[in-house]
Amino acid sequence: MDQIIYLDNAATTALSPEVLEAMLPYMQEQFGNPSSTYSYGRTTRSAIERARRSVAQILGVKPTSIYFTSGGTESNNTAIASAVRDLGCTHIITSPIEHHAVLHTVEHYSKAKGILYSFVQLTADGEVDYEDLERQLAEQARDGKKCLVSLMHANNETGALLNIEHVGDLCRTYAAVFHSDCVQSIGHYPIDLAECGVHFASAAGHKFHGPKGTGILYVAENVYASPLIHGGGQERNMRAGTENVYGIVGFAKALELAMAHYGPERAHITALKEQLKRRLLETIPGVSFHSPDNSLYTVLSVCFPDNGQNDMVIMQFDMSGVCVSGGSACSSGEDSASHVMKALGRTACATVRFSFSKYNTSADIEKAVDAAKVIFHKSKLELA
Amino acid sequence: MDQIIYLDNAATTALSPEVLEAMLPYMQEQFGNPSSTYSYGRTTRSAIERARRSVAQILGVKPTSIYFTSGGTESNNTAIASAVRDLGCTHIITSPIEHHAVLHTVEHYSKAKGILYSFVQLTADGEVDYEDLERQLAEQARDGKKCLVSLMHANNETGALLNIEHVGDLCRTYAAVFHSDCVQSIGHYPIDLAECGVHFASAAGHKFHGPKGTGILYVAENVYASPLIHGGGQERNMRAGTENVYGIVGFAKALELAMAHYGPERAHITALKEQLKRRLLETIPGVSFHSPDNSLYTVLSVCFPDNGQNDMVIMQFDMSGVCVSGGSACSSGEDSASHVMKALGRTACATVRFSFSKYNTSADIEKAVDAAKVIFHKSKLELA
Repeated sequence: MDQIIYLDNAATTALSPEVLEAMLPYMQEQFGNPSSTYSYGRTTRSAIERARRSVAQILGVKPTSIYFTSGGTESNNTAIASAVRDLGCTHIITSPIEHHAVLHTVEHYSKAKGILYSFVQLTADGEVDYEDLERQLAEQARDGKKCLVSLMHANNETGALLNIEHVGDLCRTYAAVFHSDCVQSIGHYPIDLAECGVHFASAAGHKFHGPKGTGILYVAENVYASPLIHGGGQERNMRAGTENVYGIVGFAKALELAMAHYGPERAHITALKEQLKRRLLETIPGVSFHSPDNSLYTVLSVCFPDNGQNDMVIMQFDMSGVCVSGGSACSSGEDSASHVMKALGRTACATVRFSFSKYNTSADIEKAVDAAKVIFHKSKLELA
Repeated sequence: MDQIIYLDNAATTALSPEVLEAMLPYMQEQFGNPSSTYSYGRTTRSAIERARRSVAQILGVKPTSIYFTSGGTESNNTAIASAVRDLGCTHIITSPIEHHAVLHTVEHYSKAKGILYSFVQLTADGEVDYEDLERQLAEQARDGKKCLVSLMHANNETGALLNIEHVGDLCRTYAAVFHSDCVQSIGHYPIDLAECGVHFASAAGHKFHGPKGTGILYVAENVYASPLIHGGGQERNMRAGTENVYGIVGFAKALELAMAHYGPERAHITALKEQLKRRLLETIPGVSFHSPDNSLYTVLSVCFPDNGQNDMVIMQFDMSGVCVSGGSACSSGEDSASHVMKALGRTACATVRFSFSKYNTSADIEKAVDAAKVIFHKSKLELA
């Protein structure tokens, strides 16, 4: 097999060499505990606070509203726990296509604390039905219920984008708390968290060429939040545990690089997505797309015609040297259709998510198309 | 200033070059998401499972009882949450000298769920009074209360060692759940978790030359535990979130190295501790020690005579190029006496914790003694 073509960047991305370079000093000489008062500790403390200022500036918020965590999942858990525990939310409006880090957490608080939840309706394109969201918000407000709205910014399977500012406005109107899982969008999309009206937002470094095991939780300035993980006074008493210094430094460096080169990288990746779409339409009869027009440029979810071996498709791509996924990586062990595809009623096809990074090339796309042709038995027809 | 002398290894340790070397392949080529089904993912999945087997073997338990977490604090939080939520514990017996990761978590469940807790009495040496522990266990059992006992294996400030097997026996006798924060001992002490009767144990990689941001939670085989962090099915549904692959690989490598070289390293470090003790007794009139005879070889907590500037002592050592701490790093921002020293009634001295690693030398100890002489105004007397 030739070189592997990695088209599963929504699952995780390669750590960029520049990010690793930024991390290494903190894995070698600068190892002090940032909570220590001596010079060794102050150096790492400074590195963390420099990282926090940088992240905050990029996201349009104050440094004091950024907390470093172990990743997007922990951030989502903390936000939802806090909305329930600290902010008195008794009803959660979410969607059936959220990541399990949100859905399973909502289910947990439903069971453990009797919190009710409801799903917002989705359009045929798999986007949030904003009229239904407003209807639900109005209904809960009328009943005197304090609502948490938890809706992701970009869906991890289809890339469908939320109108986050509009949802922020609706939540403001109905005095609801707004949490957005921005794990797919932060690092791939310019976003001003203060402007879009979210109270909580989550991001994960490994989705944009940063390190695994590091994320952030944004908590809006006027919001009181208490920790999920108790202990030492790290992160201003919001997240206990010795800080993962290199992870934090890497997160900030990756975000800086992502936003510094956002324009050209977005153009490059968008062209790859368009190329794949066009070439699949040319070569695979009956192909269609789960990703709506209004989707993040990094993701293309494809509905391939049933080839009688839907369960095998991801493995067949793998054997052709192309890494793709059926849904989110976290659900890979599950049955063939993900909870997202089931919720969207898209179970009658072999779903493959292609997700791109700045490291992909036009040649990668052609190899993926070649693999698809073979898998869906169209190679002979095409070559004839 | 010459080279810095780092004697705060109970706060955090330098990542060893061998551990970094083991981690680097997973920060460079091998970046796949371990939950993915394709070859890139399988490689990292294998690395994680290899790490789990290695850690389990060293700790004398089955791989399925080891869960990787973001660190010792998260592990402690998960254990206590699970004891309360899943195992029906309604009373917690702990000690006032536990790490805040335990104490603040216990306080949280006390406030949030009305769980009662009590402190075991301590001996004059700062060790657990086992008779009092048994008395409390018997009393709770008589009242039909299900108890959690949470006692650390080695105290992070004094090094005082728990007779973990004895506490395991007591908990077995009184059908109590036993959690031990082993963050200071695992990696520095041979421990067979299955034999010593703990149900939950925690460890953190950065305490034994492994990476920050990675720890383990041990859950005994017969114990049902549910996650603290909900989401994807990682860690067999026990800890959601994309795995910190390099952190996990580094944790296992660090533990392997620590235990492979345990004998000589323990002898080396024990000699340094004895040297420091002897030299301080020789040079600082009135010096005494918080660390009992039965303390971990890596820690020496010293009671220096009040020099009228107790708050400044750590900074004075720093200015002499010696990194030490007053208590745990997590409490560094607090007032001069730590909660541990207050609980032990040891507030009438300038407390300095010296903690050692394999990288320290006899010359480091002499420099620390020299610094102490200057700080405590004994230099002229000594040199006369």
